[in-house]
Amino acid sequence: MTKRGVFLTVEGGEGVGKSTNLAFLTERLKAAGIPFISTREPGGTELAEQIRSLLLTPREEAMSELTELLLVFAARAQHLEACIKPAIEQGQWVVCDRFTDATYAYQGGGRGLSQSTIAQLESLVQGELRPDYTILLDAPVAVGMSRARERGELDRFEREQQSFFEKVRGAYLHMAAEHAKRYRVIDASVELEAVQQQLGGEIDSIIEAWLA
Amino acid sequence: MTKRGVFLTVEGGEGVGKSTNLAFLTERLKAAGIPFISTREPGGTELAEQIRSLLLTPREEAMSELTELLLVFAARAQHLEACIKPAIEQGQWVVCDRFTDATYAYQGGGRGLSQSTIAQLESLVQGELRPDYTILLDAPVAVGMSRARERGELDRFEREQQSFFEKVRGAYLHMAAEHAKRYRVIDASVELEAVQQQLGGEIDSIIEAWLA
Ligand SMILES: Nc1ncnc2c1ncn2[C@@H]1O[C@H](COP(=O)(O)OP(=O)(O)OP(=O)(O)O)[C@@H](O)[C@H]1O
Ligand SMILES: Nc1ncnc2c1ncn2[C@@H]1O[C@H](COP(=O)(O)OP(=O)(O)OP(=O)(O)O)[C@@H](O)[C@H]1O
Ligand SMILES: [Mg+2]
Ligand SMILES: [Mg+2]
Repeated sequence: MTKRGVFLTVEGGEGVGKSTNLAFLTERLKAAGIPFISTREPGGTELAEQIRSLLLTPREEAMSELTELLLVFAARAQHLEACIKPAIEQGQWVVCDRFTDATYAYQGGGRGLSQSTIAQLESLVQGELRPDYTILLDAPVAVGMSRARERGELDRFEREQQSFFEKVRGAYLHMAAEHAKRYRVIDASVELEAVQQQLGGEIDSIIEAWLA
Repeated sequence: MTKRGVFLTVEGGEGVGKSTNLAFLTERLKAAGIPFISTREPGGTELAEQIRSLLLTPREEAMSELTELLLVFAARAQHLEACIKPAIEQGQWVVCDRFTDATYAYQGGGRGLSQSTIAQLESLVQGELRPDYTILLDAPVAVGMSRARERGELDRFEREQQSFFEKVRGAYLHMAAEHAKRYRVIDASVELEAVQQQLGGEIDSIIEAWLA
C-alpha cells in the first residue's frame, strides 16, 4: 500500500507572500526527492479556474455573499475530486496556495457568514478530509496590501476596505490558535530571507515526520 | 402595503415545450394587465448566466456531481437576491423557466444525489421561499428529446442517456404527487394547441385566485 502524501496548505491575507513562499517550499520537497504537486484555490483544474475567474473579476453586478460562498465550494469540490484526492492517494504531497481556511477567513471573518454555514458546506464537500499542515504567513494588513498593490490591477477582493482585511487577519489568527497542532504561524512582515529561514525549519520538521 | 406577486415556475424534461409555453403564459398575464417578469434557471442575471454557461457547455474535464449541484445553487442564490425576491416584493409576478424542482429532478433523480443534500442547500439559499405554483409539462422522454434534437447542438445535459431522462421524468411526477396543491400537471405530448388549451384553463384560475 502506498503511503498517503501530505496535504499542506499555505494561508494568509493579500500579498503576504504565499505564492513566493510556496515556491520555496516545493524547492525543498524537490531537493528531498519527495513527489508533490503544487496547486491553488480557488482553481487548480480548468473548470475550477473558470470559477476562480468569476470570483475574482470585478463586475458591476454585486455578487451575493451566498453566491460567493457556493462558488468557492463548487470550485473546491472539483479540485478535490479531479486533483487533490487522487494525488494524495497516490502518495504525492499536495501543496496548496489557500484552501478552506481562506473561506472561514474571507467569507466568514470578512463577509460575516456564519461558521456553521461554512462548516456545513465543508463537511458536504470534504467529508473528513482536512489539511495535515497549514502554514500561516502573518503580517500587518498594510504590509501585505502595499506588496500586493505593486503588482498592478486589484481583483474583486483586493478592492475591499482595510477593515475587511483586518477581520480576515483576525480570523486566521483565531484558527491558528484553535488548531494549534495543524498550524505553523510565520512572521511574514520581515524581509524575505528571514521569512524563509523560519519556513525552512518548519518544512524540514514536517518532512522528517513524514519520512519517519 | 403592496400585494406580493405570484411565483410561478414551469418545469419538465428536455424539449417538452417549457420556453414555448412560458411565452404563452406571459401573454395571458399581459392581457390581464398583471405586472410580471419572465426569467429562467440556471441564469436570470448576468453573473448567473455565466454560471449557466459553465453548467451547460460540454467540456473534456468531467464535472463532479457536487460541483454541478453547488454551481446550480450559486446561480440560484444570485438570481433570488438580484431579481426574483425584489420583483415578488414589488408585486410583480415572476414566471420562471425551471427552478429548484429541476435540481431535485436532474441532480437528485438523474445523478442520484440525495434529497437531503439538496434540501439542505435549498433551505440555505431560499429560506422558506418556494414557488406558489408549478406547471409540469409532462411527456414521454422520446417525444421531448426528438423536439429538442431538432434545435441543433446538444448541451451537456442533453447528451445524457435515455435512462437519465427517464429518472428525471419519474422524479418530476413524484414531486407532482407529493406537492399536489402546488403542481398543475399538463399532458405535453399532444399538439401545441391542445397543450395550450389545458394551460389556459390553469392560468385563468391562478389569476382569478390572485385577483380575489
Ligand atoms: N518578506 C517579503 N518582503 C518583501 N517583499 C515580499 C516578501 N514576501 C513577498 N514579497 C513580495 O510581495 C509581493 C507579493 O508576494 P506574493 O505574490 O507571493 O504574495 P501572495 O500572498 O501570494 O499574494 P496574493 O494574496 O495576492 O496571492 C511580491 O512582489 C513578492 O515578491
Ligand atoms: N406540443 C408540442 N408539439 C409539437 N412541438 C412542440 C410542442 N411544444 C413545443 N414544441 C416544439 O418543440 C421544441 C422544443 O420546445 P421548447 O424549446 O419550448 O422546449 P423546452 O422545454 O423549453 O426545451 P429545453 O428543455 O431544451 O429548454 C420547439 O421547437 C417547439 O416549437
Ligand atoms: Mg498569490
Ligand atoms: Mg427551454
